[in-house]
Amino acid sequence: MKNYFISKSKRLRGTPYTSRVEKQGVTAYTIYNHMLLPTRFEDTLEEAYHHLKEHVQVWDVSVQRQTEINGKDSSRLVQLMTCRDLSKAKVGRCYYAPIIDHNAKLISDPVILKLAEDRWWISLSDSDFELFAKGLAIGLKYDVNIFEAKVDIFSVQGPKSTDLMKKVLGPKIEELKFFGFDYYEFAGSKHLIAKSGWSKQSGFEVYMEHEKAGLAFYDKLFEVGDEFNLKPGCPNLIERIESSLLSYGNDIDIGDNPLECGFDKYVNLDNDLEFLGKDELKKVKSEGIKKKLMGVKIDTNEIAVTSSINIYDNSNNLIGELRSGSFNPMFKQVIGIAMINKPYFNASQEIKINLDGKNCTGKLCDLPFI
Amino acid sequence: MKNYFISKSKRLRGTPYTSRVEKQGVTAYTIYNHMLLPTRFEDTLEEAYHHLKEHVQVWDVSVQRQTEINGKDSSRLVQLMTCRDLSKAKVGRCYYAPIIDHNAKLISDPVILKLAEDRWWISLSDSDFELFAKGLAIGLKYDVNIFEAKVDIFSVQGPKSTDLMKKVLGPKIEELKFFGFDYYEFAGSKHLIAKSGWSKQSGFEVYMEHEKAGLAFYDKLFEVGDEFNLKPGCPNLIERIESSLLSYGNDIDIGDNPLECGFDKYVNLDNDLEFLGKDELKKVKSEGIKKKLMGVKIDTNEIAVTSSINIYDNSNNLIGELRSGSFNPMFKQVIGIAMINKPYFNASQEIKINLDGKNCTGKLCDLPFI
Repeated sequence: MKNYFISKSKRLRGTPYTSRVEKQGVTAYTIYNHMLLPTRFEDTLEEAYHHLKEHVQVWDVSVQRQTEINGKDSSRLVQLMTCRDLSKAKVGRCYYAPIIDHNAKLISDPVILKLAEDRWWISLSDSDFELFAKGLAIGLKYDVNIFEAKVDIFSVQGPKSTDLMKKVLGPKIEELKFFGFDYYEFAGSKHLIAKSGWSKQSGFEVYMEHEKAGLAFYDKLFEVGDEFNLKPGCPNLIERIESSLLSYGNDIDIGDNPLECGFDKYVNLDNDLEFLGKDELKKVKSEGIKKKLMGVKIDTNEIAVTSSINIYDNSNNLIGELRSGSFNPMFKQVIGIAMINKPYFNASQEIKINLDGKNCTGKLCDLPFI
Repeated sequence: MKNYFISKSKRLRGTPYTSRVEKQGVTAYTIYNHMLLPTRFEDTLEEAYHHLKEHVQVWDVSVQRQTEINGKDSSRLVQLMTCRDLSKAKVGRCYYAPIIDHNAKLISDPVILKLAEDRWWISLSDSDFELFAKGLAIGLKYDVNIFEAKVDIFSVQGPKSTDLMKKVLGPKIEELKFFGFDYYEFAGSKHLIAKSGWSKQSGFEVYMEHEKAGLAFYDKLFEVGDEFNLKPGCPNLIERIESSLLSYGNDIDIGDNPLECGFDKYVNLDNDLEFLGKDELKKVKSEGIKKKLMGVKIDTNEIAVTSSINIYDNSNNLIGELRSGSFNPMFKQVIGIAMINKPYFNASQEIKINLDGKNCTGKLCDLPFI
């Protein structure tokens, strides 16, 4: 595939770390929430994948913007926008929660942080969720403040992430549980750190609010990181597909509802919780879903998905579309994520797909892959 | 400035024309409304500027997405979101209209097309306006449908655009007035064509709804275009700044209100029109604006604006920020667009600015430049 340059402008915002990652050898970006997200350093995608699974990387994921919602009606508004029951949500915890509209269509799949009883951060996937929340709050006359908080996350991912963080912050960081967060001091400032991140290799996300201290923190990691073979990195396509971490805009989007995406455990229809799209979800649940997110294994070793690709069964019936994919060194074939139409949900369904003019065969499977 | 590649994925959608512009030599993209917008072909920016001002170009501007709002309460909802009086809007006309929130902050600066009494297209700048409209409509229980229409615009821009279009569509196209639109037949389909576009060199925008006929239309233009020296092109940074065409996310954003951006003629505070942010705008009007969008001329011949750049007066007071800029061959210096703080609004105010380590001098001026 031919490579194209990205034309930088103020509209595609840089991050506090951009000058650093550019010195560290970034070669490519994507745009996410109107900002630059590094996608490649000097390593190949596969080298970066192996490194991520063995060592530790620091990622500039400032693009994960935080919409802050605070004020008297903030909990009511946050609950109204998600089908996940947040009524027992605890301060200091992160919640992965589908945000849906009145038709139960997905608007975002953020991680929601409860900062206080009346203060939330919605850690966004790639859509201007803030505008939806604002429109709703204005229409409903809710007493809330909604704005983009000044927070720029860097992520520390990989099996050696705890050792690296311990070296800088001390042993207390080990006490943090998965999807918990707490405040840790470095360079005279408190930093919100969550045990989370967009890999399954263990890691932390530092919600950097104090730029000077935060950049010193970032630099310190690289100062002491050699013994852990620390490298700058970024979310890795191979690893995130293998780990079945979904990407809004790629695997799931505003055409899908949460039940189609396999978010059943985040859909609460049983109590009297009020949220948008609840009636529609009840209907979908009783009638059954008409399409389903599944895994695909394809008997080839190369793919580049830049738009959805039709998937057929052996009788040439169109049975769904591939939405993302990459060669996986562990499976030694291409694996990908696809939306499959009813009634072709069988996990061993054989498929045919044309990739760049080449006819390939493969099989469906359930998610997650591992 | 070092160049970086863009990592393509399904999330950064291509357009119906992407395979064509790639064959035609596109070398760089930006991302706009989650889609690929060509930014450079084989010509330099300055060569493309001269060509645009002398001949004619066809641009893939599919990124200008259309949010359709239709239904009983559609006019009420559209009016609620803009300070421009649309009560006398006519079917068949385009209206440039600031979209603002309850604090009178800019959410988008679209062109609004009135398709029918109860059917509108909002032709978007770079933000998910649809989510704002949806949130509002849900909150207010308005009877409307809101969705992204399947429309992919190509634009025909340049002084020879009318001759080129006449050659393909016949002389009726000459009757179209600026910011008017009508339907024209080509290849068996009707195409909405507006006399509009993001240059001041005269042109048309073809709102392509029928892909097969629309692509045939695109191809036909290139088939007959040689005599007009037709080339593929894209919005040109030099020309759009010279013409003072504003770019949301660059020159103006959610931190600004319409009066600060010079949109006074699109702000109607006098009658009993109901829209969001009206009280706030009245207050701003009576107190006077605290910052103002102005032109800047800088005594240098090179610039790359990738984030806002501080502007100082001769006594080193911070007086504002440069938001976009480029070398202009007509002015033989860099010209740009800046937000200037009160009380430094004087059109001949001398300024100092540091560009990539180089101290430069310049002057403010009023917009438009010409």
